[in-house]
Amino acid sequence: MAAVRVTVIAGGIGGARFLRGLREVVGRDAITVIGNTGDDVTMFGLRICPDLDTVMYTLGGGISAERGWGREGESFVVKEELAAYAEEPMWFGLGDRDIATHLVRSRLLREGVPLSAVTARLCARWRPGVRLLPMTDEPVETHVRLVDGRDVHFQEWWVRLHAGEPAVEISLQGKESARPAPGVVESLRDADVVVLPPSNPVVSIGTVLSVPGIRPALVECGAPVVGVSPIIGGAPVRGMADACLAAIGVETSAEAVARHYGARAQGGILDGWLVDEVDKAAADTLVEDGLPTRAVPLWMHDVEASARMAQAALDLAAAVRS
Amino acid sequence: MAAVRVTVIAGGIGGARFLRGLREVVGRDAITVIGNTGDDVTMFGLRICPDLDTVMYTLGGGISAERGWGREGESFVVKEELAAYAEEPMWFGLGDRDIATHLVRSRLLREGVPLSAVTARLCARWRPGVRLLPMTDEPVETHVRLVDGRDVHFQEWWVRLHAGEPAVEISLQGKESARPAPGVVESLRDADVVVLPPSNPVVSIGTVLSVPGIRPALVECGAPVVGVSPIIGGAPVRGMADACLAAIGVETSAEAVARHYGARAQGGILDGWLVDEVDKAAADTLVEDGLPTRAVPLWMHDVEASARMAQAALDLAAAVRS
Repeated sequence: MAAVRVTVIAGGIGGARFLRGLREVVGRDAITVIGNTGDDVTMFGLRICPDLDTVMYTLGGGISAERGWGREGESFVVKEELAAYAEEPMWFGLGDRDIATHLVRSRLLREGVPLSAVTARLCARWRPGVRLLPMTDEPVETHVRLVDGRDVHFQEWWVRLHAGEPAVEISLQGKESARPAPGVVESLRDADVVVLPPSNPVVSIGTVLSVPGIRPALVECGAPVVGVSPIIGGAPVRGMADACLAAIGVETSAEAVARHYGARAQGGILDGWLVDEVDKAAADTLVEDGLPTRAVPLWMHDVEASARMAQAALDLAAAVRS
Repeated sequence: MAAVRVTVIAGGIGGARFLRGLREVVGRDAITVIGNTGDDVTMFGLRICPDLDTVMYTLGGGISAERGWGREGESFVVKEELAAYAEEPMWFGLGDRDIATHLVRSRLLREGVPLSAVTARLCARWRPGVRLLPMTDEPVETHVRLVDGRDVHFQEWWVRLHAGEPAVEISLQGKESARPAPGVVESLRDADVVVLPPSNPVVSIGTVLSVPGIRPALVECGAPVVGVSPIIGGAPVRGMADACLAAIGVETSAEAVARHYGARAQGGILDGWLVDEVDKAAADTLVEDGLPTRAVPLWMHDVEASARMAQAALDLAAAVRS
């Protein structure tokens, strides 16, 4: 079998865990990851890229197994000291090991190195076995408009408010002047398979697709595009995807997310869709409506489970291609 | 006795320990410190002010008692991580607690806040009980020219090379456009006593005096200026002051440093000079040559010893004034 080139549009924890399984299946250096940078934020003068780092640490063996984000064996000395200086914000959990990553990145960005090159520099240490690309080199930030009209950075809504205040609108600030980072459009054009892992459909995959040029490149790509539902039995696998889906008027169900993405044949982006076994009925309905859908176990308990999911995605891609 | 206003021109460890004793004698809020910023350096995108921080931590109760610089109970997680990223330089010992200070300072400086205001903000946490002023708000850096012609930052010579390669020239880069920070000239003008503590005569006190406007303000001030020898029995109390003195052609002795500063009556800056008891003979010679000099114990074993030294400096100032 010839080496398969897979391009994955990924957010943080869910995307990273899926990628760990996919890498088991297709091997190292076969995957290009288009990472969400809408969550990026500048705090304490440090440029922080949560989703890129989660992918990098997870695939590089440095992730906290318990939290799913940040570094294993992390300490929080700097954070405590910043609090002693009354530095705001105090609600963001910045670990000491993690800070080194942000220091390297912030220094390089200030020197004018593009984020894509900075990310490659960081990955030279972590050797994630995938090509990790930011969706764009331009600084963009997802903002959330709350019911009372306040506009807050996504991180404030997500981390400080735990997405507890309903969002009226979620949008990517700065996207007008953003272009896909070098390699992003090419990776979609040249892929054998494109996978949308169980990342947040709104603030991860939706954000990547909102960068001018990326959605058209996906729609026009020759490879089958297979998505994996982040919703199982009406609830998000993790995180607060339901709060994001509510903000864009989409029900929290595997079927509704599939219809939100849409079948490519009907103007959407999907050629295939994986749902969990508990959503078998939804799968049948979607198949009837023209979207090839399979129901397989979608809980990523461990790398083996993630690898089986990834294999199912590749199998579905092969099936829809033929 | 009316409250005495003391202005002290200080470097790092020696100056800070003297100040701790002086504060015992004159009380809180009676001292203005003009701190050396020639040692300042930018590393990993962080602006580091070693001497200001040593004074702040020492008087604020956060200093490492063993090292004399940096924070007590320090950890070095970020530094290890930076090394894992192969970030240069690896020879600078940047602690985690310390990094929080540099993060706050660097962020504020980038926002355009002057270093003097940044230092006041940091001191709001540490409450050192003195008014700590940087000698200048402009970024200046002490550089060292080595025998082979190389020009290196003072920190590289001092920390990485341990001042092991002879210095041909030591100079403050950027001083042409530097002005005394707000309050510096006024603190000399309004002082009842000015003290030069046992700081390095070249790269600490000499550097402060090289900022345009500071030496004239010292020479013209109405208060007695008393210096404390950093050399005891022909050797520096600590650090490598001998290497710095050699670079400017001054012998490493209490007498030679006094003659380098010079008596104010003879065009210099000193009205009085303290040497250690072992340098009694030098004291006699200096007195004969017109510089009031006393020999007292100068080892700062503890706060009490430093306080006795400070009291001796104030006593000498009172004697030369009358």
